[in-house]
Amino acid sequence: MKILGIDPGYNIIGYGVIETDGCKVVDYGVITTPKNMPISKRLHTIYQAACELMESFCPDEVAFEELFFNTNNTTAIPVAEARGVLIVACKNYVDRLYEYTPLQIKQALTGNGRAEKKQVQFMVKNILGLSATPKPDDAADALAVALCHMQTNSVMSDNSM
Amino acid sequence: MKILGIDPGYNIIGYGVIETDGCKVVDYGVITTPKNMPISKRLHTIYQAACELMESFCPDEVAFEELFFNTNNTTAIPVAEARGVLIVACKNYVDRLYEYTPLQIKQALTGNGRAEKKQVQFMVKNILGLSATPKPDDAADALAVALCHMQTNSVMSDNSM
Repeated sequence: MKILGIDPGYNIIGYGVIETDGCKVVDYGVITTPKNMPISKRLHTIYQAACELMESFCPDEVAFEELFFNTNNTTAIPVAEARGVLIVACKNYVDRLYEYTPLQIKQALTGNGRAEKKQVQFMVKNILGLSATPKPDDAADALAVALCHMQTNSVMSDNSM
Repeated sequence: MKILGIDPGYNIIGYGVIETDGCKVVDYGVITTPKNMPISKRLHTIYQAACELMESFCPDEVAFEELFFNTNNTTAIPVAEARGVLIVACKNYVDRLYEYTPLQIKQALTGNGRAEKKQVQFMVKNILGLSATPKPDDAADALAVALCHMQTNSVMSDNSM
């Protein structure tokens, strides 16, 4: 089965595709939009890029990282707007969408919900048998979401959305 | 020229279409999604409903209310996600999208950026020559955004997005 993991963002969105049979990486990378582009055009570009990912890789399931906002987080609104756009783009192609909190992702990959970013990245590299940590971080984070879903999905879970 | 005004939301989204020639109301109403529907399905339903609005009314321009979040606002994320979805749906059909703060809308309709909701609704009814205030409130708010854009657009404005 193929899983697409998505690390939502606005300036930069990470994606990672894994094949659960053999636990191999299929592809990973980022979607970016120019800062000087109007917001509606940026959101539309994100939508189109996500549709292209779905068409290129035909994943069976898609897993998203959940958003949590602190106070004083001025990027909260555009990041959530972009996440909504990504969800709808994926929903056009598959019904099976899931979401996981950062804590769930860290717990699934390292056994510690409060593990540091480096430790999570080390496990992404290890589990997928890669020679180096995927770059940029957003892509590694997206692979982590996909791996978290692979593990979690084997038992009953209520992370569907 | 036809303007579609949108009052973003998650449980309920207001829309209002006005014709600036003669300042008439074309239609107004709300998009709603069932509370027990999974979030991805709700966002997708909102997307489809917005596309249908664009196809039914063929507005030349679309105006959105901007979002502002307080701390402890637990609906902030889904509302922003839905707003992103609405923006992309409209962008599929027209390039000219705009956004206005609640203060700008109140200022444009009543001359007072801190006017009460009732006063804004009264002005919506009056300017459009309606016999009663449009219901529900979300639809009246959407007509207020459209009217704000009609007035603001006549002078140079940087409310495009």
